[in-house]
Amino acid sequence: MTETTESLDLSKLQDELDAINAQITKQGSTVRQLKKDGASVDVIDEAVKALQALKINAAGLAEKLLGSEPEFDRKAFDDLLIRKMFVVPSFEIHGGVKGLFDLGPPACGLKAAMIDLWRKHFVLAENMLEMECTCLTPEVVLKTSGHVDRFTDLMVRDTQTGECFRADKLLEDAIDDLLEKNPTMPLETREEHLRVQRQADAYSPEELDKLLLQYDCKAPSGEPYSSSFPFNLMFRTSIGPEGTAVGYLRPETAQGLFVNFRRLLDMNAQKMPFAAAQIGLGFRNEIAPRSGLLRVREFCMGEIEHFVDPNDKSHPNFPSVADKELVLFGRDDQLGSGKTKTIKIGEAVKAGLVNNETLGYFMARTQLYMEKIGMDPARLRFRQHLATEMAHYAADCWDLEIKSSYGWVECVGHADRACYDLDVHAKATKTPMVATMKYDTPKEMDVAKLKFDRKAMGMVYKKDARMVSSALEALAEDWKDFEPIATALEAEGKATVDGYEVTKDMVTWEKTTKKVHEVKFTPSVIEPSFGMGRILYSLLEHSFYQRDMDEQRNVMRFNARVAPQKCAVLPISSSTECNSVVDEIASSLMDIDMATRVDKSSAALGRRYARADEIGVPFAVTVDFDTLRDDSVTIRERDSMIQVRLPKKEVPNVIYDIVHGRLTWDDVTKKYPVVQVDEGEGASTQAASAPPGAKTVVEATSRGRFSRPAPAK
Amino acid sequence: MTETTESLDLSKLQDELDAINAQITKQGSTVRQLKKDGASVDVIDEAVKALQALKINAAGLAEKLLGSEPEFDRKAFDDLLIRKMFVVPSFEIHGGVKGLFDLGPPACGLKAAMIDLWRKHFVLAENMLEMECTCLTPEVVLKTSGHVDRFTDLMVRDTQTGECFRADKLLEDAIDDLLEKNPTMPLETREEHLRVQRQADAYSPEELDKLLLQYDCKAPSGEPYSSSFPFNLMFRTSIGPEGTAVGYLRPETAQGLFVNFRRLLDMNAQKMPFAAAQIGLGFRNEIAPRSGLLRVREFCMGEIEHFVDPNDKSHPNFPSVADKELVLFGRDDQLGSGKTKTIKIGEAVKAGLVNNETLGYFMARTQLYMEKIGMDPARLRFRQHLATEMAHYAADCWDLEIKSSYGWVECVGHADRACYDLDVHAKATKTPMVATMKYDTPKEMDVAKLKFDRKAMGMVYKKDARMVSSALEALAEDWKDFEPIATALEAEGKATVDGYEVTKDMVTWEKTTKKVHEVKFTPSVIEPSFGMGRILYSLLEHSFYQRDMDEQRNVMRFNARVAPQKCAVLPISSSTECNSVVDEIASSLMDIDMATRVDKSSAALGRRYARADEIGVPFAVTVDFDTLRDDSVTIRERDSMIQVRLPKKEVPNVIYDIVHGRLTWDDVTKKYPVVQVDEGEGASTQAASAPPGAKTVVEATSRGRFSRPAPAK
Repeated sequence: MTETTESLDLSKLQDELDAINAQITKQGSTVRQLKKDGASVDVIDEAVKALQALKINAAGLAEKLLGSEPEFDRKAFDDLLIRKMFVVPSFEIHGGVKGLFDLGPPACGLKAAMIDLWRKHFVLAENMLEMECTCLTPEVVLKTSGHVDRFTDLMVRDTQTGECFRADKLLEDAIDDLLEKNPTMPLETREEHLRVQRQADAYSPEELDKLLLQYDCKAPSGEPYSSSFPFNLMFRTSIGPEGTAVGYLRPETAQGLFVNFRRLLDMNAQKMPFAAAQIGLGFRNEIAPRSGLLRVREFCMGEIEHFVDPNDKSHPNFPSVADKELVLFGRDDQLGSGKTKTIKIGEAVKAGLVNNETLGYFMARTQLYMEKIGMDPARLRFRQHLATEMAHYAADCWDLEIKSSYGWVECVGHADRACYDLDVHAKATKTPMVATMKYDTPKEMDVAKLKFDRKAMGMVYKKDARMVSSALEALAEDWKDFEPIATALEAEGKATVDGYEVTKDMVTWEKTTKKVHEVKFTPSVIEPSFGMGRILYSLLEHSFYQRDMDEQRNVMRFNARVAPQKCAVLPISSSTECNSVVDEIASSLMDIDMATRVDKSSAALGRRYARADEIGVPFAVTVDFDTLRDDSVTIRERDSMIQVRLPKKEVPNVIYDIVHGRLTWDDVTKKYPVVQVDEGEGASTQAASAPPGAKTVVEATSRGRFSRPAPAK
Repeated sequence: MTETTESLDLSKLQDELDAINAQITKQGSTVRQLKKDGASVDVIDEAVKALQALKINAAGLAEKLLGSEPEFDRKAFDDLLIRKMFVVPSFEIHGGVKGLFDLGPPACGLKAAMIDLWRKHFVLAENMLEMECTCLTPEVVLKTSGHVDRFTDLMVRDTQTGECFRADKLLEDAIDDLLEKNPTMPLETREEHLRVQRQADAYSPEELDKLLLQYDCKAPSGEPYSSSFPFNLMFRTSIGPEGTAVGYLRPETAQGLFVNFRRLLDMNAQKMPFAAAQIGLGFRNEIAPRSGLLRVREFCMGEIEHFVDPNDKSHPNFPSVADKELVLFGRDDQLGSGKTKTIKIGEAVKAGLVNNETLGYFMARTQLYMEKIGMDPARLRFRQHLATEMAHYAADCWDLEIKSSYGWVECVGHADRACYDLDVHAKATKTPMVATMKYDTPKEMDVAKLKFDRKAMGMVYKKDARMVSSALEALAEDWKDFEPIATALEAEGKATVDGYEVTKDMVTWEKTTKKVHEVKFTPSVIEPSFGMGRILYSLLEHSFYQRDMDEQRNVMRFNARVAPQKCAVLPISSSTECNSVVDEIASSLMDIDMATRVDKSSAALGRRYARADEIGVPFAVTVDFDTLRDDSVTIRERDSMIQVRLPKKEVPNVIYDIVHGRLTWDDVTKKYPVVQVDEGEGASTQAASAPPGAKTVVEATSRGRFSRPAPAK
């Protein structure tokens, strides 16, 4: 994977670029902070100009570097995806719909294997509680979670035709146009325009409207655009026949798990910590879907919600991954050196770089999963969210980013969401969402002993009285938490608890010590969230290569575990005898659930191997004339194209054991004689045409690979 | 499964009931036919009265029979489903939504196993082309398929509140009310009302409106209802930001496969026949969801579209299932004896009872699948659609019905849909959807050799000209098909082909003979369509039982292959030594992907067995004091409660081999010594408390089961 021939010049260029990129990140953060602090326009402008200068510098360097990177042949890749029906546009014959794609046979097999492994690697290995919740979601749930109000992008309409556009993209395009049409524009003016462009997605609706006017943006009809307004990205429908119950297609699977928290906790016998998991569809009505499978309107997600004591985010299995090395791109490195660090997750947690063990544990497990399915580890990194990127309640966030031809793309989020989600649902439904943790040995604690005047409280809060008293009792469990309330009640006769005003007549208290055997708390949630579609697409890119010297020979290097088909079986001739052995081998493979591809077509053997390569079949068994004599066949491994000869009855076990990780191809080449073959288009195995005595056998030994005449039988 | 104690009286009662039910079906069909033929009201009424008399008779008999059937304890079953989180109402804490349910951990595991088996049994075994198409579907696709216009139920509104109701259900309820309030009503009047009730779902909107008035149906607000109108059951949304592109959530997965037909055929190297398959969600906005999981608004389907030559519906693998016996409830039997027939599918096809081999093949494969996942074969039957039930284009339809406490419910449809679906999409998109079949030996055929005047045709049909010439060329391939066109063109100067008027100036022809090597045709589609949610629910019912003499002990008898968890591992004491052996065994099971449940709670062993029974864990391994001495453990089988003793290191392989069907429990009891245990609440294994010399061992031999003192070690 590493470019060993990389010249020193290139690595120097890269170093320079890294340094500048780090400065850009830092300066970007400064600009955001200045805006947040309400700095004057002049000060902000100055900072932005400095940022822009850095970016222009970086762009130049990147261009130089890019010219020297090995090119990814997207045309060949896209062509293969469509031709072999990995991915096709949905409803193509009816004109299609932007942002919707169908998975064809090889991608379905790949996805099924990926999901099967995901279940085993995460759900099964840790006894997570898996659920399958519905996509249809009533409005109240997504209102509570904040999606109805805040899951938006800014949009404008063509007032004539009603056509819609993403406002920030229009502004960006308008500035691109302007600059292109005025190549002689003074540098300073140019930079000013670029400054505006760079901030396009950060303007308020009012600011954007002003800018669209200023840049003379006209809708395709010639009319000016409408004012910009937030467009909610959720698909809306109505549930039930009345047409009045608004529902949405869920934009994420997580909410279904949060609202089931109490049942899940019961199911886990009230024990903490525990995790729930869900694999299923999510939907987002993107305004302008692009980037192929990376930004679509209907997609598969895998989400884990690990519920944990906010005061103890250790993980019992952390030691099992502590020595795993990850490539981390921490906040400080993004603002500083611009370089990633390769570091053991145990050390990263110890150093405080990663907030806690549980978060670190899942990051390492995600890395292991990616390696298991065959992602290129050199194209994986974990990028920490900058402080300015995170939600106010989040404790720490790390995205697993995967590099593809579209650049580094976020594919798995790892977020410590604190107790935000459970809190909002608890408040909206007036359902306490708390867990109880028993202490190993009771703790002596200062607590407040409360006495409620239920009548006084009931008069004011009626049905909510229970929520108010629960909130007070939660605080009373530790005097440190209750003390401010006590002080306020004494001083002012009232205090505010969870938004409720509590008055002195409602509650009396006494400071006392108590042996505490357990504590109640709202769990924090640590959430690894997998975009399975993005992972699938990235895996397709990482798996694709073209054989040296031959651009026509595309290969998908799926490992045996995830490959949609495990083995091809090919007859060297279309004779009845050959075909019947082929059927026999294929059916013995199918019997043990090894998806098998039979190719009896009359094409040359090399061509049939190439066809199997294109959909990533790792092994091909060939039935030749020797088979009819001695029941032996060859197995060819896809990437090395090495073939071994072995008794046909041993084929199913060999394939099965490789797929299940009990055997490697290397083991196979040591156990069975290696056969030399030429894979030209018209070629057939030597074994098929040459007399037995003349066969050459290549054997792998610990000292290398040697060819010698075939042993006498 | 068979009630061996069934008394002769009961079987006589059943015979009578069968006979009457057959008469009812026949009479019902007569009534429908009379209406279709536009018979006079008097004649219809007479027929309906006869039908009603039969029904009253049948109801009495059914009541007698029902009283004597072993009762299904629905309360205990429903309670178990919720308590163990098999199924819970969605968004419960927010008030829930009718017709939406979440699957909890054990049901997710069960469903994943069912789907995995479905993939292996159907897709993998026959190299079907699996796809995953989107749920979001643009209107044009569902307009073409007929769903936008015809996928409806009749509905009325409360004109005051806007609340909606299914019109036919309102009428039924109103008549129920009327009859209940007037117990002394003369029999004849009563029958007249019942006649109306029986036809509730067959009235036109106008008829229903009249009847709702006549029966004085008032909306809850006191106002009369609105006129009744068809309500489309699809969930509507809009795709893209404009809000103008109407989309629906697909009501079935099939359309995604039909629109991809051409790519699929390419993928299959143009070879026919072939099948495509899809597993995924479907959505139906039911007006009044009921019957728990059997009628929901979001559900999982598995659909297969087998494309085949309409003139040759043989299936190459049919011989492999020809001897499989199925319970068939044919059209004639429904109208005649009222009894099902148990018959080999090979004979059923030969006798013409089942229309063709491919249809029969899939019916047998479905039966085998149901048996594999553990459905009770005594509660399965295939019911043929009556001629009056089928769509006009369908050749034959057989529903697999599964009996549950809700009666016989359609769970898998097997329909020969002819070429309807491909035809409508081909016409709507002007995309030819045809396959080519090569003859083994060329056929000498009378054909028409056509010559088009492209200009004349283009003047009239422009872009459609290609469709017109394709249609003519298709007919020209056989003179028999083209002759009527030729005659019309000669006699009248014009002819109609596929809705296009062709005139004499557009085409000339010559009758000739030709060696035909291939034929083009629109394939027929044979479609097995699985309601996975209904199958899952039925399997839960079929798996549920209560131990004799103890209603508190609920068991789910999932077979090892589909059981969500394969093995429980329990320590007899909470000592560190026991616990560490438990962890060791559990992790060796997890290593080979056997989902394992560890229960280290302090509850008595019997209680922990019972907990595992409730979620259908087939095996429980117990680590006891002997384990610490000699590394042996017991395995308990859930249904027989028989335990054997074996070395702990052999446990993983035993469980793995049983799950993969390579070993039976019977084999295990023959290989290892059987241990006698009492499973009372407080019981522990004898091995745990008795001194080694006193152990009793029960051994299974071919002559029965014997107990004897344990062998000396």
